[in-house]
Amino acid sequence: MTSARKELFPLVSADVALFSIENGRLVVLLVKRANPPQRGRWALPGDVLKPDRDGSLEDTARRILRDKTGLEVPYLAQVATYSGPDRDPRGWSVSLLFHALVPVDEVPAVAGSKTEAVAWADAAAPGAGLAFDHARHIAAALGKLREKVERHALPLHLLPAKFTLTQLQRTVEAILDRDLEKSAFRRRLKAERSLVEVPGEFERGVQRPAQLYRAADGFEFAV
Amino acid sequence: MTSARKELFPLVSADVALFSIENGRLVVLLVKRANPPQRGRWALPGDVLKPDRDGSLEDTARRILRDKTGLEVPYLAQVATYSGPDRDPRGWSVSLLFHALVPVDEVPAVAGSKTEAVAWADAAAPGAGLAFDHARHIAAALGKLREKVERHALPLHLLPAKFTLTQLQRTVEAILDRDLEKSAFRRRLKAERSLVEVPGEFERGVQRPAQLYRAADGFEFAV
Repeated sequence: MTSARKELFPLVSADVALFSIENGRLVVLLVKRANPPQRGRWALPGDVLKPDRDGSLEDTARRILRDKTGLEVPYLAQVATYSGPDRDPRGWSVSLLFHALVPVDEVPAVAGSKTEAVAWADAAAPGAGLAFDHARHIAAALGKLREKVERHALPLHLLPAKFTLTQLQRTVEAILDRDLEKSAFRRRLKAERSLVEVPGEFERGVQRPAQLYRAADGFEFAV
Repeated sequence: MTSARKELFPLVSADVALFSIENGRLVVLLVKRANPPQRGRWALPGDVLKPDRDGSLEDTARRILRDKTGLEVPYLAQVATYSGPDRDPRGWSVSLLFHALVPVDEVPAVAGSKTEAVAWADAAAPGAGLAFDHARHIAAALGKLREKVERHALPLHLLPAKFTLTQLQRTVEAILDRDLEKSAFRRRLKAERSLVEVPGEFERGVQRPAQLYRAADGFEFAV
């Protein structure tokens, strides 16, 4: 590609911050870059738009996640778009950042391929030396997730289909990185009418099994 | 451009929903397209990215507004990114939508140029037959503005530097398109500590002039 053409057509790509819960912590998926630029550094999974294959940048993001994890994620949303001449050594670039959630019980064994290592990192402290501007990306994706959970959304897409109220509270706490007051949290759930009991179903393998809940039909305030 | 190259490099552009208040109504700026595609239809002001001139897509948006209105807007933020092969007849395209606010007392006389008509339209009912997917764009930009105002932000960038509490309430009402209860609104202002009185300054030209206020120093919850 000649320099003049490079200047006219920016590189367009999607990056995805895929969150899950591991041992009670909020974690984000990282991939060790197998190719230049920044080969060998950890980064969010991302790829350039393939206009012949992708019907939208949302499709690009879903393709990336399928390729890296084999997953069809239940929740994917835009976080922000980053652009400029200095983000990527290949030239003027535009990247649309998404965040996505995968339920704790569907987290794939992310073994990677021959060329690429993948790993879950602590979302609030993903480590130093990430590629490109991906440290900032992760902070933005986490910030947007926290904002939604603070406001009115419940992180139902991080939970199994049936869950206890304690599991839900622990998940919100893992996202916000602080403890919540139990009675205030349960009042909020009651006010939002977002959950329904699963009749006769209780937690297994514990001494005093708790009632299981699921999202109410048509409930829209889930991330 | 050959078809193969078109497929590799999508068209990247920015569109801006510029809101203001006119006669107590929330209005949005439209431009009549002077060139194909969709010549003659009303659209949001927009332009393709110029990588040699723009340091980011935010720069593209600010350049568009300078060209159409001569304004440097005090508030500009991303709404969402739209992408796909069918949005624009020129091929696979990516457009980053921004919303921006201009204070009621700085609204420019948008007379347009020889080739281009510009006009303010009712933001909640901008008319039928807009170009591209811009009806959806305006709804999304308005939705995001409403969400911010509902949550905790005040539309201070739509107001003059000094304003009465009634002017502020009317502006919030124009955005939300519903009346607010005065005492609840004033309690919220008091709780947020977002405003301070301008000592000794009052509204002019009315029988019972009201106290003027300004945003508190360092107040961050303004749109």
